[in-house]
Amino acid sequence: MDVFFRPRSVAVFGASRSLDKPGRVILRNLVNNFRGRIYPVNPHADELDGLKCYSPADVPKAELGVFAIPAPAVVKTLEEVGDRLKGALIVAGGFGESGRTELDRRLLETGEKHGLRIWGPNCLGTLDAHSGLNTLFLPLSRLPFPERGNVSILSQSGATVAAVLDWASTVGLGVSKVASYGNQLDVSDYEILEYFQKDPETDVIGFYVEGLKDGRKLLNMEGDKPVVVLKAGRTGSGVKAARSHTGALAGNYEVFRGVARQLGWHLAPGPEEFLMALKARSLWRRKVHRVGIVTCGGGFGVMASDAVEKCGMELAKLSEESLSVMKDAFPERVSLANPVDLTGDATPEMFAVAIEQMLSDRGVDAVIAIILLQLPKLHAEIIDVLNGFRGRGKPVVVVSPPGAYASGVNELVELPLVSSPEKAARVLAVLD
Amino acid sequence: MDVFFRPRSVAVFGASRSLDKPGRVILRNLVNNFRGRIYPVNPHADELDGLKCYSPADVPKAELGVFAIPAPAVVKTLEEVGDRLKGALIVAGGFGESGRTELDRRLLETGEKHGLRIWGPNCLGTLDAHSGLNTLFLPLSRLPFPERGNVSILSQSGATVAAVLDWASTVGLGVSKVASYGNQLDVSDYEILEYFQKDPETDVIGFYVEGLKDGRKLLNMEGDKPVVVLKAGRTGSGVKAARSHTGALAGNYEVFRGVARQLGWHLAPGPEEFLMALKARSLWRRKVHRVGIVTCGGGFGVMASDAVEKCGMELAKLSEESLSVMKDAFPERVSLANPVDLTGDATPEMFAVAIEQMLSDRGVDAVIAIILLQLPKLHAEIIDVLNGFRGRGKPVVVVSPPGAYASGVNELVELPLVSSPEKAARVLAVLD
Repeated sequence: MDVFFRPRSVAVFGASRSLDKPGRVILRNLVNNFRGRIYPVNPHADELDGLKCYSPADVPKAELGVFAIPAPAVVKTLEEVGDRLKGALIVAGGFGESGRTELDRRLLETGEKHGLRIWGPNCLGTLDAHSGLNTLFLPLSRLPFPERGNVSILSQSGATVAAVLDWASTVGLGVSKVASYGNQLDVSDYEILEYFQKDPETDVIGFYVEGLKDGRKLLNMEGDKPVVVLKAGRTGSGVKAARSHTGALAGNYEVFRGVARQLGWHLAPGPEEFLMALKARSLWRRKVHRVGIVTCGGGFGVMASDAVEKCGMELAKLSEESLSVMKDAFPERVSLANPVDLTGDATPEMFAVAIEQMLSDRGVDAVIAIILLQLPKLHAEIIDVLNGFRGRGKPVVVVSPPGAYASGVNELVELPLVSSPEKAARVLAVLD
Repeated sequence: MDVFFRPRSVAVFGASRSLDKPGRVILRNLVNNFRGRIYPVNPHADELDGLKCYSPADVPKAELGVFAIPAPAVVKTLEEVGDRLKGALIVAGGFGESGRTELDRRLLETGEKHGLRIWGPNCLGTLDAHSGLNTLFLPLSRLPFPERGNVSILSQSGATVAAVLDWASTVGLGVSKVASYGNQLDVSDYEILEYFQKDPETDVIGFYVEGLKDGRKLLNMEGDKPVVVLKAGRTGSGVKAARSHTGALAGNYEVFRGVARQLGWHLAPGPEEFLMALKARSLWRRKVHRVGIVTCGGGFGVMASDAVEKCGMELAKLSEESLSVMKDAFPERVSLANPVDLTGDATPEMFAVAIEQMLSDRGVDAVIAIILLQLPKLHAEIIDVLNGFRGRGKPVVVVSPPGAYASGVNELVELPLVSSPEKAARVLAVLD
């Protein structure tokens, strides 16, 4: 499986002279980030993006072949070059999903003959933020190469994983590997999950799925890395839509939930919760029950209290010491119960004291900090205060709604930041 | 009540020389936007922000007096100038909520004596986007003056309404009036709701509330404008936090829900849903049951199908005519059931055709358009295509997740735009 994430060399079949063709987009993305050898395959060009071009007949041995040519040409070319590759990643559609099962059969035969694995077809392929491999045929101007991190995502849908990956960049979620696996003619969801469970560069796994290929087999999978799942096809309408999308037999959602429960998977209700759960789990692995809330707006503190209870957690009871430290540090108007309401005169320094005290309070598992940036005393220094709590063992989640001034500040906060109190509570509730 | 929203003249008590004092912030905000006369009251200054200053003894008659001075001084000053005002809006705290009921009593006496109404105390006061009145003591650099619209919001919490108002500006929600009413010593939530119901510049009402002053009285209120409610204090923890925030007896949430149901109020689960429900209702008033989905990513289409069913609506069955028009217009790979999946090669023109056809299909009540801006053929022209559907009778809600390129485009879309399919379905489900 390594060949699909960190091959030493890649041959790109379909490296077109035309800049907007998938094969050429892949070539340029590889030139930008991939650290191995790259062989563009195009019998009609001498050179592309500074690299010598090859024809299928003379392309050198490469660990991975990426095929961005029409389905029939894929089969024919692979029959010709199969002995020179260890893996074939096929982005083109037009195979079994369009009824062309004969093409599938020939692909599998070629794979078996040469002992090569086949990825896809009908997918965006893979991205590895460490090796720089990237077969997603979307220009970097639309989907920048992600920041490196410890989260790997596999997805039954290419466009979905592209959108999620792009969204991830706006919330500071670092990525290790991305896998859009398409038709699973050979390499299956199961194998990718297993690979991610063993991959030393992956700590947390995200999974967009419409229907599992073999749920029973999954039940025996080893590995204890947290898996966050975004499952589509939960209702009659969704199941029907999934069938026409990936051909997945989304089946009964209750059955899927049973499998997920047994595997300890966390089911996210939507893509935003999916990303936030991945982010929280990429940072922390400890169960949260007793939550401290620091706010500069009473109303948001009340909403956060509601949300903490609704998510099955409780408001922490602050220690006598915490109360006494804060009583000494803050003006009289500050409400010292939990939530601690610093009121409209809150300063970055006051937040620093309150969060620090809660983090050192043994009765507090995690903190929700509510920052309303309409308040004039909350200068940009709040960014440094909040980022200073990054890397602490106890989770700190920031609530800061978007706004004219707020949005710019929010972008610079490196802790998980959400727009509303319910979301903060949900982020904490997924930890275990 | 007009005096609190469109007075002809305003006297500002506490117009300080110091730029960051609340009274001075209010003065500057008025100078920026208010169209009536402004009298700064400061016996120690001759002129502030280009306006002549007065002492309480010589301040001219003004319809509204805004008091940004400490509680005891408010009472004393109002006793002196009460005969020259029709309304007194008191932003300062330190009254009944701090146990000083004697100050409350004297305020009420002065009000009765001169026949003047009292707003607050302990609040941010009011903003009227039409008259330009703005007593919210937050600098415009933090909370810009909102765009004019038909939505009015009243709130038991000042900081909450400021945050919501700021957020509203990022989703293109136009505002008519804003009311932070504080302690309700005289003017109550009930009266403000009644005023908004009658106000010709208000079509939709938003209400942040922890506890109602008099729920029974509300049951007899007239007016059929839609009211969207953000209720905090729904759980034991929230009720307790509300008591220490606004002193509100948040009471039993089930009782509140009963009142809301009887009044036809829509309860939003959080601030984001609150804003989106206000936005949807500010644009459309028709019940949605049959939803059409146009997508360029199959996975998001499946998620949207799930969400539509979960929100109690259904996927529209497209007419033969719609199917035939789209079959002629689109390449073969486009999936023509509902969801219509334009696939990764989708162009702005294809979206225009599909949405237009769905809007003219009598079997479709509303459209969810899913735009994944990682796809290279979705140029910025998609903005014009989408905005062209503004003002159509049938709702169109856009799903576009944030992203490196996407976020800039999203900001320019004038239709309700949300980050995920579930949110789009929830926006449509609140219409009636």
